[in-house]
Amino acid sequence: MAANTFGEIFRLTTFGESHGKGIGLIIDGCPAGIKIDELFIQSELDRRKPGQSKIVTQRKEDESFVIQSGVFDGYSTGTPISIFIPNMDQKSKDYSHIEQVFRPSHADYTYQAKYGIRDHAGGGRSSARETAARVAAGAIAKMILNQVGVQITAYVSQVGHVMMDENKEIQIDNIENNIVRCPDDETAQKMIDLIMQVKKEGDTIGGKVSCIIIGCPIGLGAPVFDKLHADLGKAMLGINAVKGFEYGSGFACVAMRGSEHNDAFIQKDGKIQTKTNHSGGIQGGISNGMPIHFNVAFKPVATIVSGQQTVDINGNESIAEGKGRHDPCVVPRAVPIVEAMAALVLVDHLLRNKTIRV
Amino acid sequence: MAANTFGEIFRLTTFGESHGKGIGLIIDGCPAGIKIDELFIQSELDRRKPGQSKIVTQRKEDESFVIQSGVFDGYSTGTPISIFIPNMDQKSKDYSHIEQVFRPSHADYTYQAKYGIRDHAGGGRSSARETAARVAAGAIAKMILNQVGVQITAYVSQVGHVMMDENKEIQIDNIENNIVRCPDDETAQKMIDLIMQVKKEGDTIGGKVSCIIIGCPIGLGAPVFDKLHADLGKAMLGINAVKGFEYGSGFACVAMRGSEHNDAFIQKDGKIQTKTNHSGGIQGGISNGMPIHFNVAFKPVATIVSGQQTVDINGNESIAEGKGRHDPCVVPRAVPIVEAMAALVLVDHLLRNKTIRV
Amino acid sequence: MAANTFGEIFRLTTFGESHGKGIGLIIDGCPAGIKIDELFIQSELDRRKPGQSKIVTQRKEDESFVIQSGVFDGYSTGTPISIFIPNMDQKSKDYSHIEQVFRPSHADYTYQAKYGIRDHAGGGRSSARETAARVAAGAIAKMILNQVGVQITAYVSQVGHVMMDENKEIQIDNIENNIVRCPDDETAQKMIDLIMQVKKEGDTIGGKVSCIIIGCPIGLGAPVFDKLHADLGKAMLGINAVKGFEYGSGFACVAMRGSEHNDAFIQKDGKIQTKTNHSGGIQGGISNGMPIHFNVAFKPVATIVSGQQTVDINGNESIAEGKGRHDPCVVPRAVPIVEAMAALVLVDHLLRNKTIRV
Amino acid sequence: MAANTFGEIFRLTTFGESHGKGIGLIIDGCPAGIKIDELFIQSELDRRKPGQSKIVTQRKEDESFVIQSGVFDGYSTGTPISIFIPNMDQKSKDYSHIEQVFRPSHADYTYQAKYGIRDHAGGGRSSARETAARVAAGAIAKMILNQVGVQITAYVSQVGHVMMDENKEIQIDNIENNIVRCPDDETAQKMIDLIMQVKKEGDTIGGKVSCIIIGCPIGLGAPVFDKLHADLGKAMLGINAVKGFEYGSGFACVAMRGSEHNDAFIQKDGKIQTKTNHSGGIQGGISNGMPIHFNVAFKPVATIVSGQQTVDINGNESIAEGKGRHDPCVVPRAVPIVEAMAALVLVDHLLRNKTIRV
Repeated sequence: MAANTFGEIFRLTTFGESHGKGIGLIIDGCPAGIKIDELFIQSELDRRKPGQSKIVTQRKEDESFVIQSGVFDGYSTGTPISIFIPNMDQKSKDYSHIEQVFRPSHADYTYQAKYGIRDHAGGGRSSARETAARVAAGAIAKMILNQVGVQITAYVSQVGHVMMDENKEIQIDNIENNIVRCPDDETAQKMIDLIMQVKKEGDTIGGKVSCIIIGCPIGLGAPVFDKLHADLGKAMLGINAVKGFEYGSGFACVAMRGSEHNDAFIQKDGKIQTKTNHSGGIQGGISNGMPIHFNVAFKPVATIVSGQQTVDINGNESIAEGKGRHDPCVVPRAVPIVEAMAALVLVDHLLRNKTIRV
Repeated sequence: MAANTFGEIFRLTTFGESHGKGIGLIIDGCPAGIKIDELFIQSELDRRKPGQSKIVTQRKEDESFVIQSGVFDGYSTGTPISIFIPNMDQKSKDYSHIEQVFRPSHADYTYQAKYGIRDHAGGGRSSARETAARVAAGAIAKMILNQVGVQITAYVSQVGHVMMDENKEIQIDNIENNIVRCPDDETAQKMIDLIMQVKKEGDTIGGKVSCIIIGCPIGLGAPVFDKLHADLGKAMLGINAVKGFEYGSGFACVAMRGSEHNDAFIQKDGKIQTKTNHSGGIQGGISNGMPIHFNVAFKPVATIVSGQQTVDINGNESIAEGKGRHDPCVVPRAVPIVEAMAALVLVDHLLRNKTIRV
Repeated sequence: MAANTFGEIFRLTTFGESHGKGIGLIIDGCPAGIKIDELFIQSELDRRKPGQSKIVTQRKEDESFVIQSGVFDGYSTGTPISIFIPNMDQKSKDYSHIEQVFRPSHADYTYQAKYGIRDHAGGGRSSARETAARVAAGAIAKMILNQVGVQITAYVSQVGHVMMDENKEIQIDNIENNIVRCPDDETAQKMIDLIMQVKKEGDTIGGKVSCIIIGCPIGLGAPVFDKLHADLGKAMLGINAVKGFEYGSGFACVAMRGSEHNDAFIQKDGKIQTKTNHSGGIQGGISNGMPIHFNVAFKPVATIVSGQQTVDINGNESIAEGKGRHDPCVVPRAVPIVEAMAALVLVDHLLRNKTIRV
Repeated sequence: MAANTFGEIFRLTTFGESHGKGIGLIIDGCPAGIKIDELFIQSELDRRKPGQSKIVTQRKEDESFVIQSGVFDGYSTGTPISIFIPNMDQKSKDYSHIEQVFRPSHADYTYQAKYGIRDHAGGGRSSARETAARVAAGAIAKMILNQVGVQITAYVSQVGHVMMDENKEIQIDNIENNIVRCPDDETAQKMIDLIMQVKKEGDTIGGKVSCIIIGCPIGLGAPVFDKLHADLGKAMLGINAVKGFEYGSGFACVAMRGSEHNDAFIQKDGKIQTKTNHSGGIQGGISNGMPIHFNVAFKPVATIVSGQQTVDINGNESIAEGKGRHDPCVVPRAVPIVEAMAALVLVDHLLRNKTIRV
């Protein structure tokens, strides 16, 4: 019933609304003795923050944060870590137009219908601003994973019809060198051009984020229901605007034969590996030591400039106006969120795995 | 940490191995006063069982079951319902060849690596036989959903490259009229032909199951982490052989613009509806009353007839022999499993939703 | 694994240390539409706060609070409610003497042994200051219970050897009329005298808090493990300094016969009631509509003025000095904490009970 | 919401009714590689079973069991362990007299009121027969604890007014030498005499079970809500007929001063110990390495021979007849149940403790 809590042992609980006092989080179950690097948390938040480039929303959101508990002399103490990220501008004056009108493909209508009340300003709790809390928590998860050699890297692999050549090797080091976070510079430029074009038209466009995890220990994942990819899938599908998740061969497996899909086991460098990796590093729901890779589909942002047909809170026909600054495409800023959620899943299963032997 | 438990309020826990005494389940949190229809449970199990047609495994698995607790005079009492499905043939003589050898793209290696021990016979706990317990539990979930007018229907929409015409209306009533469970007879025949061809070649092939949910009450789903589609996604990804999940517009959204993707709200029949349904019936993680639809990708079955390159338990090169009878394509039998898992998610959120108002 | 989370549906998570930035909490699962009365939260915090009378610690702790999320226009929205209570004086200068030395019967040693690190200032996370967060959350729980007619009242029934006459009727309205919170004025005066005497001697003394719950709906409590009294017991035993819990006849039942202990059912005022109430309002773990009553034993505060034999962090013999202002007896301030924890248990079971029928 | 599940990592779920097909359990989260000793499980069940001596019920209950899953070649595999204990005599003919009538101080009324339906035969789910499942699970927990040197021993310390001399040392080895399970033979004989006398009178009597845990590792227990004693308390209060729990100094602490209650730390045998042990081996909710000891109060069995005033299912006055064979005093058979529940708590916290360091 912990709808705002994620994880079993390393448990993240987030709170806060887009235009309230701020957003924040508690991590309960963080191991003791972890060196907490505040600069790294800030740098991760900065990768997600608005206004970082011309292809994202020009809105200013403050991403300064304060650690309120659970850290002593720079190290985690094993008690709950709480972090608060104040909202700079709590004024809601720009949102009176959506108080009475349900914006198409937003959460306005369903929140109102479910709870009978909603904080409409900026989407309230349904705003993607909440993901800043996830990124801060993910930064701490990454610090732990770093100790055991796990490296999580996400990147933009598709925007609209512009996609990377699947056969080209991924240049992980190049991802942060362009504003769209695509490792291939040529494709990146096409993506940027497309996003700028879409933005100029007052429209938005979808995109795909891919993620590669290197160095994941063998044995993470808990069958039968908490398979590693099932928890990764839930984590990704819980991010705003996500419509699909696939790992390893993904949806392409539908058209494949067993004889081509199966990953032969081989001995290499003294370790058991697989020749191919259609399994995406996970077999039977448990990591097998090969790289984990998965894709996440993001829909086009629902806020567009042109007025849209809708109904108001009384069910009467109305027009939703496209006020406010918004992202023309969500994926450049989604990259650190995907990494953060993956980190939360992995650190949780890393700790769970400690309990299967006495 | 309840890796073998699914759900928050309506909680299913399964147990059992492929070649042990049997498999079974406990449902804790089933509401009291539900009429338990044993014939319906049996009919659901029969839809999943081996040997039901020429395109599935010819193995015989007994699917008789016994309710051991929680039901009195034909009604649920609110106490845990336990169901046991004995394994008819517990002999493991046919599995000595996989005791020492890891079958490619099976869970043999990862179970051994994680736990240091495994019940190898028939794949033990990792066998899809475990899903029979889910189908039995799903049957009870369906009885509850039936009371509130929810109808869940899954079908095979693709096998290999053979896929349904997406623009053709789904004939729900026709699904169970052919052995592949595709609502379009013409496509069904092509799928059957393909599966028979693949079977003859000793190979296997992937497939896609689609699911439509009609009559879902508005308001199900619990933001932020337990969004309805996130829980559906986890449920599906927890089924053996699943590699991907998408809902609504799914991965196609990546190439779409906001102006075409957004679902305009309209008033129709005195209810708020949407003109299109790219949202797949879920907005902000909460059901909006429109039909919920999603797709699930199943990989080709890993067991194939020809010998495959692999390593044994000591890491030495070996050959995995393809003994045993197996499914050439998993999707016809996966249809009731997809429905069962969807039913478990919905009934859980239905009960959760009762707690958001005093 | 949610060691800092309490409850299944109405879930309280607390954070914070005695001398950190502050303490706080998140309630996830608070129903929507509850009128949030901030003045009442403040009044409950004031009942727990230090410095309120001559018989409690003269330390000044700020108990002002801020609601950071989950409340809109004065009503709960169904999203997480977070409350922060800043620590006024974060300086830890007074605690250098316990950085290296384990105070007897405190948590210094066990925290250090368990986590390998601890925030020693003021006891850090183990400080009873954490209970302020519980009281704030309990105030919200009481607002909900108030809507369904539940009244929770705790009082001091014993201090040292001074105890109330068990046969005297409890004057609930009189409890807050004296500083020790004992409903019987004569006994209250003796308790106050004893506490003042103990204080003068630099010593501390134990006490007992009793609690009565009127108007609890029939049917709360979830067998077999989450019996209502089991959850009440866990709630009480989780409060600092508690050593025992008993409900109904309690430990006195050991010496009783079934023929005298059994509560005969009778019809009264059109309702099924019991003639006696040795069951304490709970039968088979489920509330039966009769008043619920229980007792909680609090040990004498561990901090005393005189130096005590102990060891330091290196295991060497040392003396623990009794610096700092502390309570001579914890029970007067424990009364609102007992009520708060009882309220959390009841509101959680109230919401759980909504899920046992479709 | 897992009312029939106990534990966070080592999770026991029980099912079954007194007169149904049987009772049983699933343990999810048992570590892999534990040698499962079936003879030990049987011997523990035999300590709880009816008919074992003249002072317990003469009812015959079959306590044979079958392990259905999770064990391979005598070792746990890390997958769910399920155990089924069939009910020998499922006939409910003897219980028609309680179908319509609520027995005083039983769970008949509250189950009926809560669920609107109940399996009345033998008390159904509320019967203490359910505790056999706990004892079986506790036996497995003990096997794990045995590996790390933890020894849990419960005994009867009081029956009616007959109690052990508190200053006498407990002869742990002598507990099982008499049928009442009191370590002091002289007191044991008085208890047996009292129980026989009470039985002859058709009455029942209460009792107290004490428990000592030796060898508990330092560091078990998870503040703030899952303190070790809070979880032990909940475990004990969840046993049928329990009315109170106290640990260490318990309720006696109420009358004590801090100067006499505090446990001075000393160095002894190269370890940090305490001179006295009023803390009962737990400080700040975390085990400190000293012996853990606690007491549990059991009420007199509610079933007595003489007819009792009550109401029927329609609220009309009626008489509850005392048919059936029952225990005159529950504590001799409660001893293994107390041990089992303590073992479940300890093994759960032992596994939890593995997750607090990376």
